[in-house]
Formats: sequence, structure tokens, C-alpha cells
Amino acid sequence: MQEIPATRLERRKARTRAALVDAACDLLATPQGTEARISDITNRADVGLGSFYNHFASKSELFEVAISTVLELHGRLFDEACAGLDDPAEVFAAGVRMTLRMRVTHPKVAHTMIQVGFRYLDSPEGLAPRAYRDLEAAAASGRLDIDNTAMAVACTAGALFGCIHLLEHDSSLDTDSVADDLAASLLTMFGLTKSEAREVSRRPLNQPTLT
Amino acid sequence: MQEIPATRLERRKARTRAALVDAACDLLATPQGTEARISDITNRADVGLGSFYNHFASKSELFEVAISTVLELHGRLFDEACAGLDDPAEVFAAGVRMTLRMRVTHPKVAHTMIQVGFRYLDSPEGLAPRAYRDLEAAAASGRLDIDNTAMAVACTAGALFGCIHLLEHDSSLDTDSVADDLAASLLTMFGLTKSEAREVSRRPLNQPTLT
Repeated sequence: MQEIPATRLERRKARTRAALVDAACDLLATPQGTEARISDITNRADVGLGSFYNHFASKSELFEVAISTVLELHGRLFDEACAGLDDPAEVFAAGVRMTLRMRVTHPKVAHTMIQVGFRYLDSPEGLAPRAYRDLEAAAASGRLDIDNTAMAVACTAGALFGCIHLLEHDSSLDTDSVADDLAASLLTMFGLTKSEAREVSRRPLNQPTLT
Repeated sequence: MQEIPATRLERRKARTRAALVDAACDLLATPQGTEARISDITNRADVGLGSFYNHFASKSELFEVAISTVLELHGRLFDEACAGLDDPAEVFAAGVRMTLRMRVTHPKVAHTMIQVGFRYLDSPEGLAPRAYRDLEAAAASGRLDIDNTAMAVACTAGALFGCIHLLEHDSSLDTDSVADDLAASLLTMFGLTKSEAREVSRRPLNQPTLT
């Protein structure tokens, strides 16, 4: 919860900063991405070019904040999708399924994820640290068979990126089916039998609606 | 086999073109990648800036040729690594292992692969079409259990990219071990038992030496 700034001037400054972050988040989801110019950002935020530097030292500083903002939204969407789930295999499957489905439900988050690419794995925000934590727990409890958690997370992220690429280049594929099949394939990699992996990956999914 | 150009002028033109392609291949493996300027390319190739357009209509045309050249080398390296192998599971494992090991044995090819990214999946050259062909055959023979070949190739490529990222950010990891473990994990995904996948992924590897 953000504190409400005390004075009118502070509130106006906070609004300008938020408008710049929002604009950067929007631009992240476009092909231009972080190549956008500062004037593109201030135009979209409808603030004067000069006021940019009252808030950020550089374009890259703003984009770092914007990326963190989007990744943290992804993390909260995941938390929403997994609320109340007890089975670590189902938690993992839900994360994979809701992430691939974000192409449709939250395209801005999905595009930003693509822009960030594998640097996503190194971020303290978003899905990567949650996946790391949950796969460690799933291995510790014996539910999944994972020798190297970092490799498991890297393979999961890579497989997700690969399937997003596939979906973007073959419009005959159905996002939900690919999402379920990918979750099942990864659970098979992590030691479930094919039929068990399939069952877990087809349980009702609480697709998050948060924006 | 390329034909030997007939006249001295033609031979000189062929040498200039080859020098430009070589320079572009070298630049592809640098962080600059396809952002390099035409003058960077002609300087590196040691040819006059003006002669560039005698050979290529644009920088992107040259880089397309360079990328094809590197991907085709990757394909031939794979062919060398798999020569004489009969077991489709071992062929797949050898492809994964030799590709990850290219970080060490053929860093230029490995860096180019990263630059190309998932567009690699759509290229008629290189490993993607070979992986597609071999996984189809492995599934048809019953050796591997694969429902959707395109997804299997996309997951394999993604997992390879993810593990390359991991190796680049954690110098305590050993490339050969990660390569063997990744091949075993993917074979588990494709229906082998963990112990069988492990055995197949630790057979002697004919790491190619071609350059």
C-alpha cells in the first residue's frame, strides 16, 4: 500500500511519476520496447518533456521501474491463480498455464515478459523467484523429482518462451490446449507419470482477473 | 561444393563477398550483433565501403546470409556428432549435448544462436529442422513418446536457451554436466525412465571438431 503524499504539490508529483511509469509499461509491450525515446514516453504520459528529469535520471532507470512493476503484477496474478491450492504439482502447473494464457488475458504482461527474456530469471520480482521457491518445496516434499532447481526453472522459462513463439507463428494452435500440454510435459520431466501429469494439468484453473 | 569462378575478376569478387560474409559472421557473435554499421563490416573485412553494395543490397541482406551460414555450420556439426548412431534417443541427446557444449567448442556459433533466438525455430537451416525430423522419427518408431513435435522442438530450444543463460550467469556450473543433465531431463519428458534417460545421456559423445 503506497502512502498518500501529504501536500498538493507532492500529490501532483506522484501523479506525474505514475503517468510516466504507466506510459513506460505500455511502451514495453510494443515492438519498440525500451528503444522508445523519452519524448515518446512523455507524449504518451501527457507530461512536459522537461519534467521527465525531475523524476528519473535516465530512460533506463524509468524502464527498470516499469519492468519491475509489470513483473510484480505477474507475480500477484500467479498468487491469485494459486490461492488455496495444496498440491505442489498443481501449483506449478497453474503457474505455467496462467502464464501462457496471459497472451490472451493480459497481453501487456505477456509482451513485457518476452521483451525481458531470460533476464527474467535473474529478477527478484515476478514468477522466477516464486517458481524457484515452489519447485524447491515440491522437491523437498517428494511430490516432484528435481535434482537442480535452477535448471528446472530455466527449462520452464525456456519452454514457456518457446511455446509463446510457437503460438505467435501458428494461429491454428489453441493457447489453452498448448498451456495444459506444456504443464503436463514439464510435470513428466519432473517425475510424474504421463497420466498423472495430464490429470493435474487439466484441473480447473483459477485464471486471475486482476489488472 | 561451390564452383570456382572462371575469371580473375570473378575470383576477386567472390573473395570480397566471402570476406564480407565472414566479417558479418564474426560481428553476429559480438554483443553489437546486427546493430553493427556497414562501415564496421567493411573495416573488419578490409574492403572498401563502396564495394559493399556491389554484393549486397542492404546490411540486413548480408546478415541473413551470415546467419544462414552459421546455422548451416551448426547443422553440419550436429551431423558429425550423430554419424553412426542408431538409437533415436541417443541422436536427440547428442544434439542437445553438442549444442550446449558449443559454448566452449564453438563460441561463435553459440553466440549467433543466442542472437537469432527463437527465430531459429523458423529457419530451414541448422538444428531446428533436423530436430523436427529426428523427433518425428523417434516418435514413429515408438522409442520416444511425443504428442506434438512442434511443441517438443520449441521446448527443447527454450530449455537450451535457458541453460545457456544459466551457464553464463553462474560460473560455478560445469557446461558438460549441465549438457548431460539437460539431455536426460528432456528424454524423461519424452517418456524414458529417469535411469534410462541418464544412461543414454552419458554415452560417449563424438563432439564435432569441424570449424
